[in-house]
Amino acid sequence: MDSVTLKEEQSRPARSTQHFFDMLRHYRELVLARICELVPRNRYQRTLYGPMLEYPMREGKGFRPALCLAMCQACGGRMEEALDTAAAIEMFHNAFLIHDDIEDESESRRGFPTLHHQYGIAIATNVGDGLNMLAMRTLLGNTRTLGLERALMLIFEIERMARESTEGQSIELDWVRFNRAGVTVREYLRMSCKKTCWYTCIAPLRTGALIANVRPAELAAINAFGFKTGAAFQIQDDVLNLTAEMALYGKEIGGDIAEGKRTVIVVHLIAHAKPADRRRILDIYGRRRTDKSADDVAFVLACMRRYGSIRFASDLARRLTDSAARTFAQRFAWLPPSPYRRFLEEMIDYMIERQL
Amino acid sequence: MDSVTLKEEQSRPARSTQHFFDMLRHYRELVLARICELVPRNRYQRTLYGPMLEYPMREGKGFRPALCLAMCQACGGRMEEALDTAAAIEMFHNAFLIHDDIEDESESRRGFPTLHHQYGIAIATNVGDGLNMLAMRTLLGNTRTLGLERALMLIFEIERMARESTEGQSIELDWVRFNRAGVTVREYLRMSCKKTCWYTCIAPLRTGALIANVRPAELAAINAFGFKTGAAFQIQDDVLNLTAEMALYGKEIGGDIAEGKRTVIVVHLIAHAKPADRRRILDIYGRRRTDKSADDVAFVLACMRRYGSIRFASDLARRLTDSAARTFAQRFAWLPPSPYRRFLEEMIDYMIERQL
Repeated sequence: MDSVTLKEEQSRPARSTQHFFDMLRHYRELVLARICELVPRNRYQRTLYGPMLEYPMREGKGFRPALCLAMCQACGGRMEEALDTAAAIEMFHNAFLIHDDIEDESESRRGFPTLHHQYGIAIATNVGDGLNMLAMRTLLGNTRTLGLERALMLIFEIERMARESTEGQSIELDWVRFNRAGVTVREYLRMSCKKTCWYTCIAPLRTGALIANVRPAELAAINAFGFKTGAAFQIQDDVLNLTAEMALYGKEIGGDIAEGKRTVIVVHLIAHAKPADRRRILDIYGRRRTDKSADDVAFVLACMRRYGSIRFASDLARRLTDSAARTFAQRFAWLPPSPYRRFLEEMIDYMIERQL
Repeated sequence: MDSVTLKEEQSRPARSTQHFFDMLRHYRELVLARICELVPRNRYQRTLYGPMLEYPMREGKGFRPALCLAMCQACGGRMEEALDTAAAIEMFHNAFLIHDDIEDESESRRGFPTLHHQYGIAIATNVGDGLNMLAMRTLLGNTRTLGLERALMLIFEIERMARESTEGQSIELDWVRFNRAGVTVREYLRMSCKKTCWYTCIAPLRTGALIANVRPAELAAINAFGFKTGAAFQIQDDVLNLTAEMALYGKEIGGDIAEGKRTVIVVHLIAHAKPADRRRILDIYGRRRTDKSADDVAFVLACMRRYGSIRFASDLARRLTDSAARTFAQRFAWLPPSPYRRFLEEMIDYMIERQL
C-alpha cells in the first residue's frame, strides 16, 4: 500500500454501545423537531416546502448534526446554542442528497423513491436549492443568538465545507470522465477527505467546538480525527453497498458499480487485477450506466471478491478507526469526562460496525 | 385585464442611447475581470474552475451587476465598494443558468451548447454548486472591506433574493405539474416578481443602494421600480423567444413552448382561446417535452399570433416600462444628476427595446 501511516497492530475490541444509539436517537429527534419549525408552512407547501421535509422525515441516521451537538456539549457549550447550526448542517446534507440523487440517476433513498422520481427533476432541483438557502438563512439567524462574530465564523466554516465537498466531487467526476486507471490509495484518501470527511465529520465537529468557544489551536486535532473517522465512514458505506441486504441498507445493492463510482475497492481492484480482467473492468467503467449489463456488474463484483478488494477496504476502514482512536486518546485528553465525550469516543467504532 | 394599476397613456419616445450601451459594456468588463480574479486557478481546473468561467466568458449582457454598480454610484457610493457584490450577483446568476439549463433540458445558451451538454449533468451540477459557493465566499469577503454589519446586511439581501427566486420558481413548477388552466395576469405578475424581478432588478438595485448607505426608507421605491422593470424584462424575453432570429437571440426559438413555460403570453392565450383551441392547447401543455411534436409547437405559436397574445404581452411590457418611468421620476427625485442616474433612467427603455 502506498499511503497513510497507519500502524499495523491488534484491533481494539468493539465498543459502540446502547449509550451511543440512545444519544444518537435523542439528538436526531431534537434536530428533526427544529427542522420542522424552521421550514415555513405557507402557500408554497405543495411543490417547495412540503417536499423539503421528505428526506429528513425518512429514517436517516442524523449522524452529522449529532457530531456537532456532542462536540459542542463535550467542550462545555450549551446544546441550545448549537441546535440551529446542527439543523443547518442536516439541511445542507439533505439538499446535497437531493441533487446527488439527480446527478447519479438514483432510484431509491432511505427505502423510498428518490425525490426526483416522485416530483420530477425540475421540482427536485428547486427543492434542493431552496433547502440550501433555508440552511444558510438558519446560519444567518445565529447572529441574533450567538452574536455577529461567532455567527460569521460559522458561516465561514460552512463555506469551507461546501468548497471542500465541491472540489472533492470534481476530483471523482474527473476520474469518471477520463476513466482514469492509475488512481492510488493516497489519491483516493485525499479525494475522500475533501468530498466526504469535511462535510460528514470535520465541519460538524469544528462548528460544535467553535460554538463552545474552543481555542483555534485545538481545531487541528479535530481535522485529523474527522478525516480518519470520515474516511472509515465512507469506506464502510462503499463496502455495505456491495454486501448489505437491500431491506437493511435502503439503497440499490451494487448501485455504485452501475454508477461507475470510484471507491477504494475499485482503486484496489484496478491496481491488482490481472491484465485481461483489468482491461475488461476498465472497459466496463468507461461505459455509461445505461450501457452496463447486469452481467457486467456481476463480473466486477466477482472480481472484487476474488482479488480481495472488499476485504482490503474493510481492513483499511478498521485501520483508520484504530488510528482515530489513538488520535482521540492523545489529542483530546483536554476534554473532561462526560456523556458527550463518551458519545464521540464510541462513534469511532460505529463507523465500521454499522450495517446501514 | 384583471390586474396592476397601469395608466393607459401615450407611450414616451424611446430613450436608450449609446451612453447606456457604453456604460453597460464598461461595467461588464470590470465585473468579468473581477470574476476571473475570484475564480481560483489550481488543480481543480479541468472539471470545476475552468467550466465555471464558461458562461460568464460567453457574450452575456452583464445587466444585473451593472444595475448594482450604477445604483451604488448614483447614490454617491464608490464603484470599488460594490464590485465584489456585483461580481457575486453575476456568479449567482450564472450558477442559476447552469442548473436551469439542466432542469429545462435546454440545448444551447448564448449561442453555444449548454454546460451539461458539454460536460454531462453531474459535472455541470457540481460546477453550478461551486459557483454558488464562490459567490457566497465573495460576499463573505465584504466583511474585510465593508465591515461586519454592511457585509451581513448584503448577505441577508442575497438570501432574500434566493428565497424569492426559489418560491417564484416553485409557483411556476406547480402550474406546470398540475397543468393549471386558470392562471390570471395578476397571478402571473406575482410569480414573475418573485421568480425574476427580485434577482434581475430588485436585489441588484437594493444591494447597490445599501453599499452606498442609502436609508432603508428609500428601499421601498426601489422595490416598486425593480418590479416594473424586471417584469418588463421577463415579458420581453418571452416575446423574443417567439419572434427573434436564432442568430441574434442565442436560444432555441419557440423553446418556451416545447418546455411548457407559463409565460404571460400563454396565460393570455388560455384565457382567450375558443373552447376547441383551448382544449388542444391545454392538452399540448399537459404533455412532456418529448411528447410534443413540431406541429404542436407550430399550432400553439399560430394561436398566440391569432389571439393577439404576443401583442398583448408587448403592450403589457410597454405599460410596465411607462409606469416604471413615472416611478423613477416621482420617487427617485432625491438622486442627483449623474451619468449613473442617467444609466438607470435609460435602462427602463432598454428593457423592451433590446433584441437579445
